[in-house]
Parts: sequence; structure tokens; C-alpha cells
Amino acid sequence: MFALPPLPADAPSLLIGFSGGLDSTVLLHRLLHDAGYQRHGLRAIHVHHGLQAAADEWAAHCRRICDAWGIPLRVARVKVSNHAGQGLEAAAREARYAAFAETLVSGEILVTAHHLQDQAETFLLRALRASGVDGLGAMREWRPFAAGWHWRPLLETSRAELEVHARRHGLEWIEDPSNLHTAHDRNFLRRHVMPLLERHWPHASAALARSAALARESADLLGQEDAHALAMTRTLDPATLSTTALLALPPARRARVLRRWLAERGLPALPAEGVRRIEQDLLAAARDDEAEFAWRGTVVQRWRDLLHAGPARAPLPAEWEAEWDTRSPLRLPTGDVLALEGAAWPTPLRVAARRGGERLRLPGRTHGHALKKLLQAEGIPPWERRALPLLHDAGGELLAAGDLLLGARLDEWLRTNGAILRWERLAA
Amino acid sequence: MFALPPLPADAPSLLIGFSGGLDSTVLLHRLLHDAGYQRHGLRAIHVHHGLQAAADEWAAHCRRICDAWGIPLRVARVKVSNHAGQGLEAAAREARYAAFAETLVSGEILVTAHHLQDQAETFLLRALRASGVDGLGAMREWRPFAAGWHWRPLLETSRAELEVHARRHGLEWIEDPSNLHTAHDRNFLRRHVMPLLERHWPHASAALARSAALARESADLLGQEDAHALAMTRTLDPATLSTTALLALPPARRARVLRRWLAERGLPALPAEGVRRIEQDLLAAARDDEAEFAWRGTVVQRWRDLLHAGPARAPLPAEWEAEWDTRSPLRLPTGDVLALEGAAWPTPLRVAARRGGERLRLPGRTHGHALKKLLQAEGIPPWERRALPLLHDAGGELLAAGDLLLGARLDEWLRTNGAILRWERLAA
Repeated sequence: MFALPPLPADAPSLLIGFSGGLDSTVLLHRLLHDAGYQRHGLRAIHVHHGLQAAADEWAAHCRRICDAWGIPLRVARVKVSNHAGQGLEAAAREARYAAFAETLVSGEILVTAHHLQDQAETFLLRALRASGVDGLGAMREWRPFAAGWHWRPLLETSRAELEVHARRHGLEWIEDPSNLHTAHDRNFLRRHVMPLLERHWPHASAALARSAALARESADLLGQEDAHALAMTRTLDPATLSTTALLALPPARRARVLRRWLAERGLPALPAEGVRRIEQDLLAAARDDEAEFAWRGTVVQRWRDLLHAGPARAPLPAEWEAEWDTRSPLRLPTGDVLALEGAAWPTPLRVAARRGGERLRLPGRTHGHALKKLLQAEGIPPWERRALPLLHDAGGELLAAGDLLLGARLDEWLRTNGAILRWERLAA
Repeated sequence: MFALPPLPADAPSLLIGFSGGLDSTVLLHRLLHDAGYQRHGLRAIHVHHGLQAAADEWAAHCRRICDAWGIPLRVARVKVSNHAGQGLEAAAREARYAAFAETLVSGEILVTAHHLQDQAETFLLRALRASGVDGLGAMREWRPFAAGWHWRPLLETSRAELEVHARRHGLEWIEDPSNLHTAHDRNFLRRHVMPLLERHWPHASAALARSAALARESADLLGQEDAHALAMTRTLDPATLSTTALLALPPARRARVLRRWLAERGLPALPAEGVRRIEQDLLAAARDDEAEFAWRGTVVQRWRDLLHAGPARAPLPAEWEAEWDTRSPLRLPTGDVLALEGAAWPTPLRVAARRGGERLRLPGRTHGHALKKLLQAEGIPPWERRALPLLHDAGGELLAAGDLLLGARLDEWLRTNGAILRWERLAA
């Protein structure tokens, strides 16, 4: 009996993806006849894609096997919708995993029969797509999936070992003539390239899978240290990093940290020249330079020691102004919202973009100061300043700049009335 | 004209490896017709392997081309000796690079015509040998070579681009029917595997070469940080690392640091289970445990906070002793040497292994102390203690333990006579 990696003692029940083919039949049999796995509780799921005439027979075959072995089986009928630009195999895979996800209960472990040859193919497919070490790492034994986990315990077991097991135990399985489970590219590798490689290098699959494992180790190490380096460059605002801290990193690490930061913020991946442009135009720029790099509706910009990333935001149009009845929130042309909570200002306010020359008297001060100086002194970055709504009272007096700078009069009124002014920025 | 990477302005002269085939003919032509390269000074070398009947013709062809283009050519005749276990191609390659190395003058740059397809093949060959990211990085554009450098400026240029260049400029080249320049494995990839891949993925070579470049970037980053982490774990003795510092590293980094340390010390690479064994048996061991891991004549051992690596050294045999006329050095059974320089002790000394119970009076002390306690107090590690020769005078008094602990009497005599006692250990 070929070796399987152990499960943690407290692992919950196992849901085995069961196509009825060789690989998953052996997997199911192997798990069933090992008390170490069986005691976690086993059940199986067969996905009926409904695309071939024989699909009913396959489901019936799986039903017979599971009945004979005393394993609860769910047959999930799915509808494969072949979207434009997506192959039938990819659509079938998507439907299959959606059925797995829907069936998996909280904490349960989906087990699939991907084996050594699959892993070798994945490595080659990734290399043929010009992947870096993260992609070359290919499939992981464990990954979080839906409400639980996805476990691939056969990644180091060869198909030949699975066949030996099947014959030794007289297992029956079905051959799927449709290759519905195999995408076109993978199928080409499996039918034409791998046999050729194995003719010359008998251990080709094991070697490629080993390269994948080593790439995965390197990717993990780099990833851990990216996370650490990113933590060291953060500021209190998750949308900004410290350029000083970034520049203290080796350039290759800095590139990885920038990509990780953008990914964590849910922003689109940088284009090919992105890192170089950020290095040259933003990080090498003089401190007072308001440089930026924009792509796909996203912008990275530098100001002082800060590097800021977020969706590109429209500035407040220079001539824009509006009357605001503070009993309900006001949506600004930028998509931002102004709200006064807890009380209403007695008269409508006038909200406008900056025109220049505004002055504001801060709480505790006897004189007003130029707004421009106050914004500089407070370190309000340009991406805030450009969208900053100014609040004037009916008489034209400046009461506040967004919720960043409150004038003495508004501040006192807010305290007296237990009210709060909010400038809600569009997700930065 | 396809693009070539620029050379630093102060780069010295270029020596082009010129087989007369398509790749090196285009390389030579391209460099010659670009003032940016030509001003560094170009010369060519053709290696005459003397293995084929046509080899004289090839050399003559190269001579004609170089004469026509006004490029100095050296034809280097080499003798290819086909060692047991080494293919003819590998032997030819070795002879070729030996000729390049011999011809290259100090600081000169050897330029070879390896191109994108060669790089893609190298990536696959490395993956088929189960390489990690260092190997998957494939060929580097620059590497130190012999007295100068080796530059491969065509690694991002495809063979198709080279052909276009050759036809556009009416270049003549020879087809080498022997594949003498191509090892068997590479040839199999080139003739059978790559055409198949390119039928399905037209940009297969570019993709594989890009994966190699990304692996190289990761390998470089990991390597830089390995060097840094290794520096943090060093002690004053290059043969030992601090286990405390090692254990502060993430396990994957620790594994890389251990391998790098051994490589830097010129010791054989760890076997597959080596890192795990060192982790389990040495680093997880209790502090007073004298655990070790040995392979291929090398041993890593732990003692207190130290991890020591070196050639496995025989201990001094327990019953061994010898008479030493100090006028000439004494070779010990361990391979170590004892030498007394600057003076000779009046009578022969007796040199022996430790028997137990020895006592020694140190300079400035009034009483003798047990040698065992002194060795402990001085922190002499077990790998020193096991090989430690004791020096006794004719009357049986202990004078010194190697050159690590000198007794008061010998110490005073050495000072008076301006002499030095040396215990020269076999390269540790």
C-alpha cells in the first residue's frame, strides 16, 4: 500500500471528490481501508455534468461502488454554461468546484486525487505561462477552500503506484473518454509531451514535481519575508507606505513588497513596467515632487515620506459649489459624502471647492490663518486636498475644510449639540 | 537590427567565441557593425576540436570570414579526451572552455552566442534534474570567467531574429552536422520536445526563458538575504555558527544558511535528509549534548551554543604516545603537527593523548588544577579536546595541552627564550 501523508488527529470529516476514474477510486479505497483516515468520517461526491450520454452510467457506477463500500454518496447535478472565451473543460471545472463548495460543511475537508503526474504537468503549464516561483510552485497539498479545506494527499504518488494498488485490490473504474476533466493545454502535455519526456528521462514527472516543491519552498520563504518587510514600511493609514522604509529594502524585495501591498488592498496588479516607473518617477523623486503612476483606474502617488495607493479619484471641480441642507447627507461630485450627525445646522451651508485665499480660525486661536498654511502644517496630503470640500455658512464664513480642519465656531457648535461632521471618502 | 544590451563604457576588449555557425556569425557581425561595441576592440577565437574530417574546412571558413571583416582570429586546436562516464559532447565543451580561458587576457570579456531557445532548453533541463530556483534561473547574462568575464548578450534574442539578421545581411555560415556542440539531453529537447511545445504554444521559448529570469530574480534575492543571515549567525571562528542565532531564523532560511555556510567552507553538500537531521538531532538537542551529523568525511557537531562543521577528524588514539625532539616538528596520528619555534627544549618531551586525571599549574597560579576543569572553564569544544596532544617533560610533569593551555613553567621558558609553541590542526 502506497504511503499517504497523515491527517491531524483533530481533522474533521472528509468529502472525497469521486469521478469513478482510476485516481479517485484508488483514493477512496485507500482512505476507506485505513482506520487512521476512516475514523474522521468519509463521504463522497460525484459531479454529474450532464454533458455526455454516458454520464448517467458513470453516476450509477459511482453509486454501486459507494453502496458496496458503505460510503454515503452525493450525486450533484450541475449545469455547465460555456461562457464566451472559456473552454468547455474550464466551465466544467468551475461547475464542479462550485458543487464541491456548496456541499462542503464548515471545517470539512475536500479530498481530491491529483497525483505526481498532475503536479508535473501543472509545473510545466505554469512555466509555459512564464510564471515566477509562486506559479512554478504548482499545487499545494493543503489550501483553504469554501467553508473548509482542500487536501491533495496524492501529489507525491505516481499514477503507476495508483494502478498497482487498483489491480492488487481488483478495483473497477471507468475511463472517461471525454477528457472533460482535462483542459486542452493539459491534455496536450499529457498525451504528447510527457510521454516524450519520460521516454528520455524516466523520472521526468518526479523531477518536475520536485522542482515545483523547491519553488514552493522558496515562494513561501519570500512570501513570509515580504509580509514582514511590508509590515515594516506601513504607516497608520493602510493606503500609504513610508518611502524611507521602502528605500531601505533591497530593490528586488521592494518590488515584491509593492506588489503584495497592492494585492492586499484589492487593487489591480501593476503592469510590467510599473515597478520600474514607481522606482524612477516616485521613489527617486525629490521630496516635494507630487509624482504619480496610474494604471487601470488606480494611482500610486508620492508626497513627502508617503507613498499612497488607491483608486484614481476625481478632484472636486474647481468651480463646483452646492447648497447643503444638513438634515441629510450630501453626495459630492467626487462620490464622497458629507454628513452631519446628531444635529442640523440652523441654515443651509454652502459647500464648495477651494478657490484659494481662504482663511480659517482654529479652536483656541484668536486669529484666522491661511487655509493653505494650515493644510501644509497638518500634513494633509495632496490626494486629500484635491477632493477637499469647504463648508461655508450662509454669510460666506469658512466653517470647516472637510472633517480635517474644523473652525472654532463649528467646533464649539458640534460640542454643544453633541454632533459629528463626517467627510466619507470613496473607498481609498 | 535586433537589440543588444549595452556594455559599460569602460568595458575592456571582447573575445568572441566563433564556431562559424549561424548564432556566432550573427553575433560577430552585429558587434562589428555597431560602433558602441567595436570601439572596445574585438577579436575572435575558433576552437578546432579535431574530431571531424570537416573541422579543417570549418576553421578555414572562420579564417576567411574574419579576414574579410578585419577581425583578428585565433584558431585554438584542442585535444578532446573522452573520459570514462563523460560524453564526447561534454568533453568537447570542457576542452572548448579551457581554450577560451587560456586565451582570455586579464579583464577581457568572452562573448558567446547563447540565445533565447538555448535559455529555454537550459530551464527545462534544470527542471528535469529537479533543480530549485538557483538552477531554474538557468544562464546569467554575466558571470566571472577565468581572468575576465563571460557575457551572453543574446539570451533574450530568438533564433528567428538571428536568422532574419543573417539573411538580411547575406551572411554565410556553416551547419555543424555533428552536434558536437550539443549534449545528448539538450539535443533531444531541441529536436523533439521544443518543436512539439512550440506547435501548441508558439511563444514557449520566450515563456520558459521568462520563468527562468523570474527564478533568477528570486534566487538572487534569497541569496543576498542568505548572506546577510549567515553573517548574523557567525562566531569569531569561521568553522562555527551560533545555534541561538540560527534558531532565531525561519526554518526555511536556516536550511539555506546551513547549505551556504558549508559551500563557502568548501565542504561537500548535505545529503537530502541532512537539514532535517541537523534540525532534529543537533539544533533541538539539549545544550550539553555532543550530537553530530556526519556525511562524506564531513561532520557537523553541536556543543553548547556552537555548531561546528569540518572534515571528520580522527581523535588522538587513547594509548598513543611519542617522544618529541623539539628541534623539528612532530606529526601526530591525527595529521596535526606540533612545532616549537625559536628555541629547543633541552631534553626530548613526551607527547601523549589524555588519559584522565592530569593536572596543570597555569601562569600566575600557586596550585595546579584538574585539566578537565581547565578545559571546561576555557570552553575548549569537544572537537578540540578529542585531538588534544599533552606535552610532558622527561620527569612526567604536564607542561601544556596543545597550544591551548600552557603551564606556568613552559610559559615562562617560552617568554625567556622568545619561543612559540604551535599546534597546527589539519584544515578544519
